Amino acid sequence: MNDREASASSVLGARVGVLGAGQLGRMLGLAGGALGLEFTFLDPTADSPASAVGELLVSDYCDVDALTQLAAARVVTFEFENVPLAAVKALEQKAQVFPGSRALEIAQDRLSEKTCFRSLGIATPAFEAVDSLPGLLDALSRVGYPAVLKTRRFGYDGKGQAVLRSEAEAKASFERLGQAPLILEGFVPFERELSIIAVRSSAGEVACYPLVENHHADGILRKTLAPAPGVDLELQRAASQHIEKLLAHLDYVGVLALELFQFGGRLIANEIAPRVHNTGHWTIEGARTSQFENHLRAILGLPLGATEALSPCAMLNLIGDAPDAAAVLAVPDAHLHWYGKAPRPGRKVGHVTVRAPDVETLASRVAELERLIAG
Amino acid sequence: MNDREASASSVLGARVGVLGAGQLGRMLGLAGGALGLEFTFLDPTADSPASAVGELLVSDYCDVDALTQLAAARVVTFEFENVPLAAVKALEQKAQVFPGSRALEIAQDRLSEKTCFRSLGIATPAFEAVDSLPGLLDALSRVGYPAVLKTRRFGYDGKGQAVLRSEAEAKASFERLGQAPLILEGFVPFERELSIIAVRSSAGEVACYPLVENHHADGILRKTLAPAPGVDLELQRAASQHIEKLLAHLDYVGVLALELFQFGGRLIANEIAPRVHNTGHWTIEGARTSQFENHLRAILGLPLGATEALSPCAMLNLIGDAPDAAAVLAVPDAHLHWYGKAPRPGRKVGHVTVRAPDVETLASRVAELERLIAG
Repeated sequence: MNDREASASSVLGARVGVLGAGQLGRMLGLAGGALGLEFTFLDPTADSPASAVGELLVSDYCDVDALTQLAAARVVTFEFENVPLAAVKALEQKAQVFPGSRALEIAQDRLSEKTCFRSLGIATPAFEAVDSLPGLLDALSRVGYPAVLKTRRFGYDGKGQAVLRSEAEAKASFERLGQAPLILEGFVPFERELSIIAVRSSAGEVACYPLVENHHADGILRKTLAPAPGVDLELQRAASQHIEKLLAHLDYVGVLALELFQFGGRLIANEIAPRVHNTGHWTIEGARTSQFENHLRAILGLPLGATEALSPCAMLNLIGDAPDAAAVLAVPDAHLHWYGKAPRPGRKVGHVTVRAPDVETLASRVAELERLIAG
Repeated sequence: MNDREASASSVLGARVGVLGAGQLGRMLGLAGGALGLEFTFLDPTADSPASAVGELLVSDYCDVDALTQLAAARVVTFEFENVPLAAVKALEQKAQVFPGSRALEIAQDRLSEKTCFRSLGIATPAFEAVDSLPGLLDALSRVGYPAVLKTRRFGYDGKGQAVLRSEAEAKASFERLGQAPLILEGFVPFERELSIIAVRSSAGEVACYPLVENHHADGILRKTLAPAPGVDLELQRAASQHIEKLLAHLDYVGVLALELFQFGGRLIANEIAPRVHNTGHWTIEGARTSQFENHLRAILGLPLGATEALSPCAMLNLIGDAPDAAAVLAVPDAHLHWYGKAPRPGRKVGHVTVRAPDVETLASRVAELERLIAG
């Protein structure tokens, strides 16, 4: 066997370690199963969704024995950004970890994240660090009302944040959130929320998916339209340039998501997620290569797959409970994803992706699916 | 929870039992994992490819305890048609089995199969049952040379058959194969080999994939072009009518494959496979719904997904050993599937699917991939 064959064979039989075993891990495992990859997941919760597609080590993220087992994989990644930075740094001593601790550290702290955006010339809302109530009131005198007070760390799905419209709200919200380091951000009167997902391989190759349009309710993503309607070349190019700068700056390997606000033709960066992302689930059926396959290709040093959309496409999250599967699948080109989680209010338990030959047909299929999901 | 919700939830969490745990089972499991399904496979071989995507019961197919465990699944299917008919009949006493023993029994015996084709008005080569050497010579006096002598049962990938060009070859081949019941078939001077895959749901809904063109070497499928080039509406309609007759006659539920010879604009039926099929692997990336997802939808009583090709597409089998994965994935729109099997000469260890915007581009991508796979 020559070197080329040895390298090819070992990629095909390779084991991938993943911190976290939620639905993102499950979808990584399903994509990797096609490529012949094997998976070891580490998660504190037994019966996590990814346990169906690989070995699951049930332990605290910082458990030394579990991390040692995980480090035996050819490459390690994470599917959840609120894993302890120390766990990732410990893994880096023993294994290839992509994306690495540097990207994770920045993404875990809204202040570092926005400072990074600013340093790269990527527009952000006004922002200031807040450590005290007087500091908050002082910052508000510059940022103005309305503003958004957020914990710097561990926020997700709209948790750990408050919109401030008055000094009274500022005081009440500081009372509630002020135990943790905070950031005050100017409120962006955005027209819509967009995101872009890109992938960079260990060889430095980069590919960007089209901008998508995201709709949230109660802080939780409900719907993604892909590609985002009404995006001209200039806007797509601006978004691609932003995320390419971030990928290069972070020497990033894998899939990165960048959430943006669109306001008057401008893009304002909100946050990054250093992992496969809910606003990229449409790529499984809707893009030439899925974000999950591309993340695996990237971290294994394989060439990236093309990222164009196959047709207009939408993704609808299933929140809290199951729809009538038969009714959903009766909608043409609808594909149902169910994560194997117990239904619970507010919980992401699955999603539906639907393609259509044109945006008008897509709109009617989405309307039908929204009716079924709400019912 | 009303009845409709109960039914939907139970489909989403359902367990599927599968006789056989090879690569077809693995691809069923990957498709079903997206739908939240769980799998139990039964196979005599430990570490079979499907063990990565579900529970594997390692036992003889007729083991009563193993069959009882398998029967606890909501629905049972098979991914291999050489399972003992008795095992499937035993399962049918305890569980819903799709497709059932009737289709399996016919598909397991080339004589029953061709008799079934003939009874439905589907053209076949000339054929006669052969039980003795004098019987063979007698049949040859009617069928003529060249002819093909085959074992009636347990043939696959060209095993258990011989082309007869003379009485001497007839005698030698009978010597070799004559321990088992045989069938003599007229040799069809076909222009090309085609196949059609269709799916029928438990509600009687039917969907047909486009005809595809298949290329074999040494009795093993090497390449499928989808859709088959140069197929007019009339030929596609004839193939669809043939398989629809078979589905209805067999009261079939699930995916069925029909292999055909094309000869002077006519279709001549060769054989059926009562399962997902190698000539349908292109559907994973190349069709609006994959054969694996549609098989699961069908046996679970869910609506079928659309079966059109997304674009011109080809599937190349990886036989014997691994190609250079990086080189394969550098070909635009190529997707690599690796089954997790140990490489061995003549063994199907994976496949590559490639799409292209047009047939010219497809041809050049296929040529490049064939070069890489042969290397």
